[in-house]
Amino acid sequence: MTEITIDSDRLYRSIEELGAVGSYRDDVAGCDGVRRVALTDEDASGRRQVVAWMREAGLDVSVDAIGNVFASRSGREPELAPVMVGSHIDSVPTGGAFDGALGVLGGLEIVRALAAADVMTRRPIVVAFFTEEEGCRFGTDMLGSAVATGRIALDAAYEITDAAGKSVGGELERIGFRGDEPVGQRRPHAFVECHIEQGPVLAHGGEQVGVVTGVQGISWFELSLTGHSAHAGTTPTSFRKDAGLCAARINVALRDLVDSGVHGDLRATMGVHRPHPGVVNVVPGRCVATVDLRNPDDAAMAAAERDFRALLEERARADGVDIDCRQTARTAMVPFDDRVQDVIEESATARGYSHRRILSGAGHDAQEWARVCPTAMIFVPGEHDGISHNPRELSTPAQCARGVQVQCDTVVMLAEEG
Amino acid sequence: MTEITIDSDRLYRSIEELGAVGSYRDDVAGCDGVRRVALTDEDASGRRQVVAWMREAGLDVSVDAIGNVFASRSGREPELAPVMVGSHIDSVPTGGAFDGALGVLGGLEIVRALAAADVMTRRPIVVAFFTEEEGCRFGTDMLGSAVATGRIALDAAYEITDAAGKSVGGELERIGFRGDEPVGQRRPHAFVECHIEQGPVLAHGGEQVGVVTGVQGISWFELSLTGHSAHAGTTPTSFRKDAGLCAARINVALRDLVDSGVHGDLRATMGVHRPHPGVVNVVPGRCVATVDLRNPDDAAMAAAERDFRALLEERARADGVDIDCRQTARTAMVPFDDRVQDVIEESATARGYSHRRILSGAGHDAQEWARVCPTAMIFVPGEHDGISHNPRELSTPAQCARGVQVQCDTVVMLAEEG
Repeated sequence: MTEITIDSDRLYRSIEELGAVGSYRDDVAGCDGVRRVALTDEDASGRRQVVAWMREAGLDVSVDAIGNVFASRSGREPELAPVMVGSHIDSVPTGGAFDGALGVLGGLEIVRALAAADVMTRRPIVVAFFTEEEGCRFGTDMLGSAVATGRIALDAAYEITDAAGKSVGGELERIGFRGDEPVGQRRPHAFVECHIEQGPVLAHGGEQVGVVTGVQGISWFELSLTGHSAHAGTTPTSFRKDAGLCAARINVALRDLVDSGVHGDLRATMGVHRPHPGVVNVVPGRCVATVDLRNPDDAAMAAAERDFRALLEERARADGVDIDCRQTARTAMVPFDDRVQDVIEESATARGYSHRRILSGAGHDAQEWARVCPTAMIFVPGEHDGISHNPRELSTPAQCARGVQVQCDTVVMLAEEG
Repeated sequence: MTEITIDSDRLYRSIEELGAVGSYRDDVAGCDGVRRVALTDEDASGRRQVVAWMREAGLDVSVDAIGNVFASRSGREPELAPVMVGSHIDSVPTGGAFDGALGVLGGLEIVRALAAADVMTRRPIVVAFFTEEEGCRFGTDMLGSAVATGRIALDAAYEITDAAGKSVGGELERIGFRGDEPVGQRRPHAFVECHIEQGPVLAHGGEQVGVVTGVQGISWFELSLTGHSAHAGTTPTSFRKDAGLCAARINVALRDLVDSGVHGDLRATMGVHRPHPGVVNVVPGRCVATVDLRNPDDAAMAAAERDFRALLEERARADGVDIDCRQTARTAMVPFDDRVQDVIEESATARGYSHRRILSGAGHDAQEWARVCPTAMIFVPGEHDGISHNPRELSTPAQCARGVQVQCDTVVMLAEEG
């Protein structure tokens, strides 16, 4: 097999060009950001740009019924299942240029590099991007890949509406991306996604590439605490039922639970904490709070959830506060394929890139494809502690190129398999 | 001296009639509330109603330059300093019918009862109400009585603006209550205010009347915490600088400080706790929080403030969070006059009402008058744990009558002094 070398400049230029689609000035971040929310006009512009590049690269473009785009490069044995690469081009409302785009444009760069080297792989290669990965418009992340791989039914997906009442089906139609290809037909030989890490681990460890072992389990809760609103001056402490303090104690106890180490690599976050009425001299009578638990081990997650619920009962009793707890999301750990991980690791080693195995803290399209074919991911480090979902999101040309080069070598290797 | 008996029905009818001015339907509370915010049209209507009643009762009404209203009933020795009673008729935006109004209409009832009994006291009696006691429109509570007693300069008070930019001076002019009487002239013989307790102490103790010993010290802080906003899934715990968790730890530590008892009867409340961005899967990078400390002992308050600031330093260091701490209010303990308290207590005992000495947790006009003359207050219990600043605020006719009767007896006794 010829060694294929990707073109780092061409890759980065594509990322910058796509980043200009839906760009806006973000005064808080002090730089330009990307706003290309799923199935909006900006997303449609981005989609048309990427499809045009796919066609220029000689790929055969197909759109499925949920708006996922698949661009195929044939192989020496075109009837074999393809190796698929891809990610998403939709963004959060105040996002950056790398989240998702790196994986799509990296895939495009791989086929461009193959074409430039005039190399035909044994298996076909498909470069794909998937609808509404972020979930920030219609509330369900990984929507396109979940429909393509059978977790969510197409009809149900069509009926999901955004805050303005617009449906997925209607918006797909409106922007011209409700495609003809039936969903659920594609069974790739393997799926490999390259993505920015969106965290600080690689940057702090000094590793150039991450070999992703899987996506950790997620468990979300919304808490509604009801105590007794009271005057901060006139109410003796013994009479208080402070819903805000109760939520604060839960937050502190959760961190203690994390620090105890009894639930392995548990992470816990209280992102929402909204005491009511929220004024300086009133003891909060109500409080809404959210809890985000993550764990790479399903048994440890289940044990952590049990401890969390016991903690709620204990606090309700001790603080005299009613606590209503509603689970709002729950996914199990998704382990990635060992052999694909090994191929990625061998590719990184062969290129002389430093690397480590790393668990994904965030959800990705790859976790959906893991249900239907051997799957793994490659992570690329980011500047500023890997800040993401933020205009300051940044991976350098060299960082991006290393990840896509490893992905290219991995894809070429997998595409030669029988 | 003839024993004067107040008319409980007439008193309660007045409270209900004034409560209808600025009333609104409160769907959360499930009952009608009172919205008579200082110097609004509703406040003006309430003022005109009370002034009309004052004139009907034969009182001589005078308005000072900050809009305080003084209604005088002459005495047998009209040149002697008067005994003053009074409170306020402005309300919070979602208030009840008793806060402030009880003290003003109780004073009116006292002069009505004296007139009905055809009794002339030795000293004059003045029934007063003061501008913007609540502080919820212009941000400075006890504004009218503070100007009348010299703590705040008139010119400075005129220039204070509300959120819409309207000034105290302009709004006084607009509603026709910028009076001719110079401020700072009145030096009463004594000041006695009757007020609802706004807390649960009397109701739980079963006492019918409270003899108020003073107003505890108040210390307010606004905290701005700055950590590092991060992805809740991808950021290992050791990398986190969670500003929301840091504020939660401060809240919990403050309650521990209260419970330790080392600072006497310290009370602590975190009423505001606003993590940013406030979404389920983001570690809060910033948080704004408020702290309200109360203490009846100035030395204990100062020690509590020192411990609080040390706590902030400790948490900033341990949590890696910058904490900016700004003091937003600070008043010392205001002790009330022992002799006036004794007269109140003797009056309650003579009437056979159960009573106790009680510290005021909230600020009142009386604390301003305490600077210029012997002053004390009478508290009346409230239903629902003394809920106040809420449409459900309620004291029964019998509860109100007992407080005003004790006030009447106290005033008559003080007004006979040489």
